[in-house]
Order: sequence, then structure tokens, then C-alpha cells
Amino acid sequence: MVLDLNDYVASYDDFPKKGVKFRDISPLMEDGKAYKQATDEIVAYAKSKNVDLVVGPEARGFIVGCPVAYELGIGFVPARKEGKLPGETVKASYGLEYGESSLYLHADAVKPGQKVLITDDLLATGGTIEATIRLVEDLGGIVVGTAFIVELADLHGRDKIKDYDILSLMKY
Amino acid sequence: MVLDLNDYVASYDDFPKKGVKFRDISPLMEDGKAYKQATDEIVAYAKSKNVDLVVGPEARGFIVGCPVAYELGIGFVPARKEGKLPGETVKASYGLEYGESSLYLHADAVKPGQKVLITDDLLATGGTIEATIRLVEDLGGIVVGTAFIVELADLHGRDKIKDYDILSLMKY
Repeated sequence: MVLDLNDYVASYDDFPKKGVKFRDISPLMEDGKAYKQATDEIVAYAKSKNVDLVVGPEARGFIVGCPVAYELGIGFVPARKEGKLPGETVKASYGLEYGESSLYLHADAVKPGQKVLITDDLLATGGTIEATIRLVEDLGGIVVGTAFIVELADLHGRDKIKDYDILSLMKY
Repeated sequence: MVLDLNDYVASYDDFPKKGVKFRDISPLMEDGKAYKQATDEIVAYAKSKNVDLVVGPEARGFIVGCPVAYELGIGFVPARKEGKLPGETVKASYGLEYGESSLYLHADAVKPGQKVLITDDLLATGGTIEATIRLVEDLGGIVVGTAFIVELADLHGRDKIKDYDILSLMKY
């Protein structure tokens, strides 16, 4: 039976600050069948793109991308926040829907020419994903696709990454 | 071919502060075969414990636990840091090897009687995992096992959770 994944997304008004409607995929992750169905849709997409590596931004990008990497037998690279990665790194800064931040990758985490899928729970303004794309490309990786559980269409994140292929399982 | 997973753990002296030797499982996650082998060992352990749900602390606990939940067709619940979870939550505070922090779960994330596996990359002093155990038990869950990629034996985290079953894939 195919589930309607919309039944597994919670909405919260005014979180993390007033005026922001927060879409939360916790119910989807917490339900084994819904989590498997969503992951398998992304796995099929990744296969169609011949992906070599999955990269996801901290922290919910890990929840989306890790089982995809596992199922395909390929590696997962976390894009981490400030102060989390020892050793040599590359950095990209970005504005958020609420605030500003930076993301980092280990300088040897992506090999030149690797075909990379970037995953996150939410495509909102697109700032996080655009920074992750820059990091991957800085290291010579080729971003062959981006995959999200939820796309917030009103925030026009899609416009910010219009040169890239996008899979979003649900739109609001 | 069975890999020696020790070949996929990097060590950094004096990170994140002087005197701390940081063990980094990034090379393991970034290598598809090593990530799959490590995950499959934890999947087998989880099956032997009839696990209903996987819970992992932010953020590397997600990388370890998510593919295990996916492979078993069960849910994954992230234990999040301050300010990340909307709605009603439960909280547990703990001391770290370096600093202090709190973790949160959604109040409905674990159902009473569910058999829970807790995952993280590292068993160090045991503070993070002990707090995660408290959260799960607060909600009525039964912690049937804990699984780690690396155990730092000198820090005696094992003593802090001595009433619980522990799987660690590597010890240093």
C-alpha cells in the first residue's frame, strides 16, 4: 500500500520565530513504512542519476541522505556546521530563512568528477542547499541532483538552484 | 571481502580542544563498502534484540542509526539539541568530555513499551548516551541495546551505562 506522505508532515506556526510556519518531517521519520517509502523514492531518483556519493547538510540532511547512501552501497558525506570537523576543510557561508550560518566539508571528502546527490529534509529559501552545492563544486564534484522531502514553494528556493535537477516528494 | 574498519577511522590530536584525541569516522562513512559493512553489523545486532525503533543523538548518531532503521523498516527518532524541536518535548542535560549540553525528544516520539536501540558514532564518557537513555525511558520506552562505531575504552563510558547491552564495532 502506498502511503500519502502528506499525512506524516507536522506543521507548527511561529517556530523557530514569529511568522515562520515550520514543516516538520519527524512523523515521517518515526514511522518505519513512511520513512522507507520516502527513502526508496529518493533511491530510485539517485539510481537514475548514477550517483557516486551522497552529501547532506547538518543535521536533517543526514536523516534523508544516509539510508539512500547505504541502500546504494555508496558513501555519505556530512556538510557540518562551525567547529565540528577536524583537519583541512572548505567553507561556504549562507543566509537562512532566519539567521546566517556556514557549512564545511573535509577537503578530501569529495573526489574530482564524482557524481553527487545532495539531500535535505526541506527546500526553503535554498540557502543551505546552494552553499552545499558550492562546497561540492569547490572540491571538483558534479552535482547531478538534489532531493528533498518537502519543498516550500512560496520561498522560491527552486529559483536559487535553477541550474540543478530537483526532486521534492511534497510541495506546500 | 571483510574490511578492517580500523583502516577507516582517522585520529586528530588536540581537537576540539588541547589534550583531546578526536576519533573521526568520516572515512568510514565516505566509503560505501565500509559504511555498509558497519551498518550491517548493527542491523544484525538490532534484529537479535527485536528492536521496534532506533533513537540517535544529534548529529552523528543520525548517520549511524538512520540506515539501520531504514533496513529494518522501522522508525528513526533524532534526539535533538536546544531549540531544534517545535511542540511538546522532554529534556535531559549531561556533561560532555568538553562542555555541557541538553538533548530533547518530542514527547510522543517513543511509545510506552517500544523496544529501542540507541546509536551513536562514539562511546566516550557516556554522557550523551546516558542522557538519551533517560529521555527514552521517560517516555516509557525500553532500551534493549546501544550501538557505537567506536568505543574509547579509557574514558569508561561503559561503566556509566553498565545496566545496558553495548555493541561497539571498534575499541581504542
